[in-house]
Amino acid sequence: MDYQFRNIGIIGRLGSARALDTIRRLIRYLNGLHLQVILDEGIADMLPGHNLQTSSRKLLGEVCDLVIVVGGDGSMLGAARALVAHSTPVLGVNRGSLGFLTDISPENLEEQVAEVLNGNYLVEQRFLLEAEVRRGDTPVGQGDALNDIVLHPGKSTRMIAFELFIDGQFVYRVKADGLIIATPTGSTAYALSAGGPIMHPRIDAIVIVPMYPHTLSSRPMVVAADSELKIVLDSEMNIYPIVSCDGQNHITCTPGDTLHIKRKPKKLRLIHPFEHNFYEICRDKLGWESRLTQGSE
Amino acid sequence: MDYQFRNIGIIGRLGSARALDTIRRLIRYLNGLHLQVILDEGIADMLPGHNLQTSSRKLLGEVCDLVIVVGGDGSMLGAARALVAHSTPVLGVNRGSLGFLTDISPENLEEQVAEVLNGNYLVEQRFLLEAEVRRGDTPVGQGDALNDIVLHPGKSTRMIAFELFIDGQFVYRVKADGLIIATPTGSTAYALSAGGPIMHPRIDAIVIVPMYPHTLSSRPMVVAADSELKIVLDSEMNIYPIVSCDGQNHITCTPGDTLHIKRKPKKLRLIHPFEHNFYEICRDKLGWESRLTQGSE
Amino acid sequence: MDYQFRNIGIIGRLGSARALDTIRRLIRYLNGLHLQVILDEGIADMLPGHNLQTSSRKLLGEVCDLVIVVGGDGSMLGAARALVAHSTPVLGVNRGSLGFLTDISPENLEEQVAEVLNGNYLVEQRFLLEAEVRRGDTPVGQGDALNDIVLHPGKSTRMIAFELFIDGQFVYRVKADGLIIATPTGSTAYALSAGGPIMHPRIDAIVIVPMYPHTLSSRPMVVAADSELKIVLDSEMNIYPIVSCDGQNHITCTPGDTLHIKRKPKKLRLIHPFEHNFYEICRDKLGWESRLTQGSE
Amino acid sequence: MDYQFRNIGIIGRLGSARALDTIRRLIRYLNGLHLQVILDEGIADMLPGHNLQTSSRKLLGEVCDLVIVVGGDGSMLGAARALVAHSTPVLGVNRGSLGFLTDISPENLEEQVAEVLNGNYLVEQRFLLEAEVRRGDTPVGQGDALNDIVLHPGKSTRMIAFELFIDGQFVYRVKADGLIIATPTGSTAYALSAGGPIMHPRIDAIVIVPMYPHTLSSRPMVVAADSELKIVLDSEMNIYPIVSCDGQNHITCTPGDTLHIKRKPKKLRLIHPFEHNFYEICRDKLGWESRLTQGSE
Repeated sequence: MDYQFRNIGIIGRLGSARALDTIRRLIRYLNGLHLQVILDEGIADMLPGHNLQTSSRKLLGEVCDLVIVVGGDGSMLGAARALVAHSTPVLGVNRGSLGFLTDISPENLEEQVAEVLNGNYLVEQRFLLEAEVRRGDTPVGQGDALNDIVLHPGKSTRMIAFELFIDGQFVYRVKADGLIIATPTGSTAYALSAGGPIMHPRIDAIVIVPMYPHTLSSRPMVVAADSELKIVLDSEMNIYPIVSCDGQNHITCTPGDTLHIKRKPKKLRLIHPFEHNFYEICRDKLGWESRLTQGSE
Repeated sequence: MDYQFRNIGIIGRLGSARALDTIRRLIRYLNGLHLQVILDEGIADMLPGHNLQTSSRKLLGEVCDLVIVVGGDGSMLGAARALVAHSTPVLGVNRGSLGFLTDISPENLEEQVAEVLNGNYLVEQRFLLEAEVRRGDTPVGQGDALNDIVLHPGKSTRMIAFELFIDGQFVYRVKADGLIIATPTGSTAYALSAGGPIMHPRIDAIVIVPMYPHTLSSRPMVVAADSELKIVLDSEMNIYPIVSCDGQNHITCTPGDTLHIKRKPKKLRLIHPFEHNFYEICRDKLGWESRLTQGSE
Repeated sequence: MDYQFRNIGIIGRLGSARALDTIRRLIRYLNGLHLQVILDEGIADMLPGHNLQTSSRKLLGEVCDLVIVVGGDGSMLGAARALVAHSTPVLGVNRGSLGFLTDISPENLEEQVAEVLNGNYLVEQRFLLEAEVRRGDTPVGQGDALNDIVLHPGKSTRMIAFELFIDGQFVYRVKADGLIIATPTGSTAYALSAGGPIMHPRIDAIVIVPMYPHTLSSRPMVVAADSELKIVLDSEMNIYPIVSCDGQNHITCTPGDTLHIKRKPKKLRLIHPFEHNFYEICRDKLGWESRLTQGSE
Repeated sequence: MDYQFRNIGIIGRLGSARALDTIRRLIRYLNGLHLQVILDEGIADMLPGHNLQTSSRKLLGEVCDLVIVVGGDGSMLGAARALVAHSTPVLGVNRGSLGFLTDISPENLEEQVAEVLNGNYLVEQRFLLEAEVRRGDTPVGQGDALNDIVLHPGKSTRMIAFELFIDGQFVYRVKADGLIIATPTGSTAYALSAGGPIMHPRIDAIVIVPMYPHTLSSRPMVVAADSELKIVLDSEMNIYPIVSCDGQNHITCTPGDTLHIKRKPKKLRLIHPFEHNFYEICRDKLGWESRLTQGSE
């Protein structure tokens, strides 16, 4: 057989028995097709006696033509940040409930993976954001995010005072619990709970959502994805805010620091089965079927 | 047997085959107990050959010790406005899906009605609002509402400019699509869609929700139930707004009219089975089980 | 002198004395430069003895190299829909308070117009939407909008039940007061009051905002500007909803009609002075200076 | 002269030069009237050579007939929690900008204080909440709040999973950034930024506002002030949430802890000048004058 992909990496969610079962099935299936399987080191330790090649997550993108992530959307976020450098295609398998990023169900694992291997799939380019915190002109921390970059007060309960600039233009000065900067991918995650709009993955834009701002007239704002954002932290306040990337990596700031955010040049290549439907996932995950019914006979 | 109620009125939703079936079962059951059944004239026409006493809705409250409403929450609204004058206890039977006001299910109709007849029930006092539109000092329209009084632009697409006064104090001047004034009972209906809070039925307060106000800092406001509200319509605008009571009765206004709203002195006596639980109805009807799950492994 | 534009049309807001004053100043100034001034017929009637060429609004775009609109953003909406066919550049002069579309102030009228005539200006391409209502396969109404297309219940107080499809994919079925479909230009107008995000004019996207939906989990959604939207009105309901384009043109629908919305191929060419700053207009018009201060010493 | 109050305590905001100036003026004025002035120990240190009696904040309420707080609403919160035990009347003087709780302006200090001393004032009873965190049956932390009790994740960026019970009835299980429980007094502070309604001070109710809940259909809820709330923290999560009282006192929780909240029996006696107007303060502090104006000519 002539498959689209020959070297296939596998990344899995640690500590999930269900994910491990699915990974074992996946290895069995891929081995049966005589494809080369390379395990992420993290998950390899959980599969004693596997007899497979392993790789650090960092190198996985380099040696594989395709990486399959087994877990929830959270697992995909970590994988995406590691794999984006090589633009390796990524396929997500969920652990029983549909995810925005992991839309292959374990029930139909073999058929759906077969379809992908045979070249029947959609590719979506998803962009990431990169954050850099600077103290004066010196970078003091960096991070990437597929979903969102969140500025928040850390362990303090005080509000953060900051100024927002977009492409060098002053936007506003605000006092708030924090600020969420999300990609379309992240628009259905934390930014949505905070009042941001759902953005279709095809939109080339980012959304900026102030968190519980003092100014009642503040609103979520959608700007072009190639915008450069600068957030200047008030130098007078005495709190040490934190910048969190996908809720997984954290940078601690000091009053007066500046946070710079822009789109990463390389994009994630996310693979979907043909039947993938963004709106169906929205209906399923956001509970659009639940309806108020009073007074509406 | 010694029942709590001997003369029992029945009001039903017109045009619902399911409601008619339930009403026939109910009549059969009450007849079997040798209780006096009086039918609302509206529904009597739908039940040819019923051989029962009938009454106008207006008189029903006077001649009955208990009125059972079969239908949705909307049927209950109409019944409540008619029955409040005599404080006649009212029991609501839904047509298959739980309502905030109609919480007896047709499946357990006989058992649950039996419990009530035997004196095992809760009574809630629900207050209503009364609206009066005045032109100069002359009243030009009146209406009652169990749920809400809504000022809206009618067939115009223009905003309404008005001033709000509470107990004679100026609150704000606003330009908006309209204004919702809701009781706790109505707080889970239209006011909720418009951003108002859920108010427990026991709260003695009303909520005022501006509809899509021009001023982004406007917010829902909760004030004491004995407050007197005055809304002064701008005399310069050239639209003819409408005041709707429970979405069922309508008063057409003229620029410069004033709308006066206050609590009605008489309250609705709403009867519930013992297992009635307000929060359970909220969970069921508002879809509180639906959960976002991205990034939350 | 060699000016960029030689034939200059003027459109003004009817019934505004302040706008008329500014128009007279503008005519005097342009005449002094020996430029050809063509008046919109509507405004010409308000300026007896003007001795200038006049034109229908429809033809104005054809005979002019530049059209200046004197009034508020509402005047600009009407002008834009008429002028878009010829891509004639349009400049907006406000009547004393800054507008999102009319950002030349009457105070500096001559200097700012001089700058534009000398070629010192920015051009923004703003797209419009076109709406078509179909009954079966027959178009029964059409309209264009620079700001928004709004589906609303007209004089009814009942909710509209409809299904939304985007590019042929089913999105949701909802019961709501209506639906707003707005361009980035319109995102700071009605859609903002309804909870939509602010979209930078450079974003190539439209926002879809359900109005007071029954389903509490509905949210504003941002989709690509080249999406084709279809809204199917429930054929069982007995209300006759209205489709309003920029709040100025209206199409009456019948149950079962479909509303089709897509981007117009031709764009409005909106001219700004160099100092134009979108975020500054936001700060000014949305009241971002107003701040809550309790508890924030 | 026969004054209503003879022993007058003074509490001031530390570290504010403006507050100190006002306090010096106030002392001069009260000394001139031969009234007994007792300084809060905290502020006494900032006024060397004052020659006045001093007292701990705790005892201040016992020895004074009236306490005047000079500062912002934040200063009042701290004072209120200390003074509520003795129901000592409290008057608030702001430092230049109107507060919800501090409505005497330094400009008219002497006249307005004179009015109060002469018995011309309004008294409002404001209730406080008390929080208790229990581990099993053992109380591990307690706190009072005039504004709000906030459950939040502390330095973690993870959501808190918890169950809410009101008067022993299960309300919901939710995953959220936290939960705000606010009095009417606190309804115009943090709870308002988080989407809660404005509650008139006269309302006998508390508002419960979930913070960025996963469940999109969650809404603020208003329940009777005599309700007893129990929040059960998920025992499986591995974060240590914090309970903050008025944002000033903090209790650290452990997974599985329960948070109990109820109204304090004693109320704060808040004194206002006769011209006090709640809605005027709302207009001023919430920026209700700021208006959108596009498309609204």
